[in-house]
Amino acid sequence: DLRAEVDKLHPADIADLIEQLGHDDREALVGVLRPDFDGEVLSYLNPDLREEIVELFEPKELAAAVAELDTDDAVDVIEGLDEDTRREVLENLPAADRALVQENLTYDEDTAGRLMQRDLVAVPQFWTVGKTIDYVRAATDELPEDFYDIFVVDPMHRVVGAVPLSRLLRQKRSVRIADLVTEEVDTIPATMDQEEVANLFRQYALVSAPVVDAGGRLIGVITVDDVVHIIDEEAEDDIGKLGGVGDTSIYRSVLETSRSRISWLGLNLFTAFAAAGVISLFEATIEQIVALAVLMPITASMGGNAGTQTLTVAVRALATRELSSSNAPRVVGKEVLVGLLNGAVFATLVGAIAATWFEPMIGLVIGCAMVINLFVAGLCGVLIPIGLDRLGVDPAVASSVFLTTMTDVIGFLSFLGLASLLLL
Amino acid sequence: DLRAEVDKLHPADIADLIEQLGHDDREALVGVLRPDFDGEVLSYLNPDLREEIVELFEPKELAAAVAELDTDDAVDVIEGLDEDTRREVLENLPAADRALVQENLTYDEDTAGRLMQRDLVAVPQFWTVGKTIDYVRAATDELPEDFYDIFVVDPMHRVVGAVPLSRLLRQKRSVRIADLVTEEVDTIPATMDQEEVANLFRQYALVSAPVVDAGGRLIGVITVDDVVHIIDEEAEDDIGKLGGVGDTSIYRSVLETSRSRISWLGLNLFTAFAAAGVISLFEATIEQIVALAVLMPITASMGGNAGTQTLTVAVRALATRELSSSNAPRVVGKEVLVGLLNGAVFATLVGAIAATWFEPMIGLVIGCAMVINLFVAGLCGVLIPIGLDRLGVDPAVASSVFLTTMTDVIGFLSFLGLASLLLL
Ligand SMILES: [Mg+2]
Ligand SMILES: [Mg+2]
Ligand SMILES: [Mg+2]
Ligand SMILES: [Mg+2]
Ligand SMILES: [Mg+2]
Ligand SMILES: [Mg+2]
Ligand SMILES: [Mg+2]
Ligand SMILES: [Mg+2]
Ligand SMILES: [Mg+2]
Ligand SMILES: [Mg+2]
Ligand SMILES: [Mg+2]
Ligand SMILES: [Mg+2]
Ligand SMILES: [Mg+2]
Repeated sequence: DLRAEVDKLHPADIADLIEQLGHDDREALVGVLRPDFDGEVLSYLNPDLREEIVELFEPKELAAAVAELDTDDAVDVIEGLDEDTRREVLENLPAADRALVQENLTYDEDTAGRLMQRDLVAVPQFWTVGKTIDYVRAATDELPEDFYDIFVVDPMHRVVGAVPLSRLLRQKRSVRIADLVTEEVDTIPATMDQEEVANLFRQYALVSAPVVDAGGRLIGVITVDDVVHIIDEEAEDDIGKLGGVGDTSIYRSVLETSRSRISWLGLNLFTAFAAAGVISLFEATIEQIVALAVLMPITASMGGNAGTQTLTVAVRALATRELSSSNAPRVVGKEVLVGLLNGAVFATLVGAIAATWFEPMIGLVIGCAMVINLFVAGLCGVLIPIGLDRLGVDPAVASSVFLTTMTDVIGFLSFLGLASLLLL
Repeated sequence: DLRAEVDKLHPADIADLIEQLGHDDREALVGVLRPDFDGEVLSYLNPDLREEIVELFEPKELAAAVAELDTDDAVDVIEGLDEDTRREVLENLPAADRALVQENLTYDEDTAGRLMQRDLVAVPQFWTVGKTIDYVRAATDELPEDFYDIFVVDPMHRVVGAVPLSRLLRQKRSVRIADLVTEEVDTIPATMDQEEVANLFRQYALVSAPVVDAGGRLIGVITVDDVVHIIDEEAEDDIGKLGGVGDTSIYRSVLETSRSRISWLGLNLFTAFAAAGVISLFEATIEQIVALAVLMPITASMGGNAGTQTLTVAVRALATRELSSSNAPRVVGKEVLVGLLNGAVFATLVGAIAATWFEPMIGLVIGCAMVINLFVAGLCGVLIPIGLDRLGVDPAVASSVFLTTMTDVIGFLSFLGLASLLLL
């Protein structure tokens, strides 16, 4: 039957199946799977959809499903529940699990403390390889299902080092653990932002890393599979912000989606009216030479696109920490030169077309306006994100509206302004 | 001295240091580090910059640095070299390393065969945990520095299963390996594209996975640290393409950067002239009502932004495989409704402003044009990427220019067309 077929699948694939179905089929499938539901499926579900799915469960069923999960995954499911459901689920969790989940929840969202797995393997420095292996063999129940490093702690439970399992495995039983610890272990404070956690894993190619409290004591571990998820989330976040959408999820309702996009469109409307205001200064000029109305969007549009190119590079380089104060002046200089160079190329091209279509002087005007606007686009495309970053504002979210305001205003102003000066 | 200070750093941090320096300081630092250069630093360097750095080395020195690396990292460095340097470096590699590197290079770029690490731990099914541990202890030299799974192979060297080290470690020495293999192991064909490899790791939270040849024989392993790199690369790629830049690297010269951006700007110029062509159809109308020239960029700009929002969501959902043929109709329907809804909201707002600024009928015209264009933006924002994806074209690279052509053309056409009909 259906249930037996679905049970053969990996929880991640069951989650995908639920995601792909329409609303009614989805509820029907969850209905079939509900008795003894696999908690792992919940943790693989898209968070927006999960909100919808968990409402189909009794708090007790939900608690039973969540109880199967590692602390980090349980926290991930529980943090998305509304106040009431969250309380009920927590009440129905085994006391030990509940305590761990609640402890993780005391840390801010998107910090290491929220993300950490609590089960881990920690041994004192004076143990040997043999004793460690015996301990792992005996302690099966308390250990996490998967682990990649053995953490070495001092009597205060402060992290002294880490031993990758592959290193442990190649040593004789008599070797002391203290002699195997890595030169320097990257400990992660529980308050560290997940983006920084991801950068650490990426930089040092980590597979797992110990999380410590304010006193340096080992309280959890973050593993790379969760970091992969964070990296996806952060890239998704940057892409969404650059595209002017707060959330790239396809599982939200029409109303939620519409609402989440209105603020960005509203901001853009403001920009568009600023540009309209600039144009209105030149109504008299346009009335005399209608060709200007035909050509004027070209300069603005090219500036917007060239600026977006620069902006994209700058925002990414800031996110990956490649763009820093030490190389910023060089990067700004380069972008300005690229802007001038491409400005010259397109000035020639557009100037020639406009001169042929209308008259030579109009070609000259649009050519000059093009150089000016592509120069401004290059300059603003890199300075705006750097400036926002220095002010502590995420450059991905706000850069683009400032940039297009600049390129629209300067695009219309330079073209129509030069036209007024040179053609009338 | 400087050398001693730098040697204390992690190779990834040395690479960052080299990246942050200006051209001359960079050459000076590499000069200091050149004798006995750490190959790992090369593998952490940004590929664009690496091209520049490797030219400072003699082929012999380069070969010595590369020889220290795992096959996958060696291949990554070598594939970026120009023909001559590549040959010279290969000649100077130890014969065994050279054979492995050349084998990887026979696979296409960005496939699993290129990315795989060749050193791995494979044992037959009939071994016990004890024998496996003894083998690992004895065979230290041939084994990779880090490994996370032991692969189990049949006499034909075909993959039968995988045993995570943490599972091996908890079992008694007498347990048979065959009893420990995971239900189903995800083997990766050497010809699989890296994007698909990343999707597998992401979907099943893998840490390492075996790579097999056409006959199903185990030939390599891919580990998650390299997959993290791929995920970054693919996200970077999508972000760059959406932003109209082929390459988001900040290390290219002014000329290279300028050249790489010109094709996109050229395409956009074509779009801009299409829009200008539409406007020129209405020159007579604009001559009579100059207010139209002032307001006309607003509809086009709002359409472009609303369309980009939809496009961003659709491109990401296609990349992550969340948007598929089964849910496409629903997503399209939703985006159209969101477009109509936001169209109505902004039609009211913009209509009211335009009516106050100029006259009521102009408000009506721009309001209707807004609804039309935001509807078109929603529809095209999702249909264009889906269509390109079906045609086998990467939707990230081409969607945006088609979209803005549509929203510009329809924006100007609907506004100026309705104005001609209703106002003259
Ligand atoms: Mg999924
Ligand atoms: Mg898990
Ligand atoms: Mg979360
Ligand atoms: Mg964040
Ligand atoms: Mg986890
Ligand atoms: Mg971010
Ligand atoms: Mg780096
Ligand atoms: Mg390595
Ligand atoms: Mg080697
Ligand atoms: Mg490569
Ligand atoms: Mg690819
Ligand atoms: Mg590797
Ligand atoms: Mg892609």
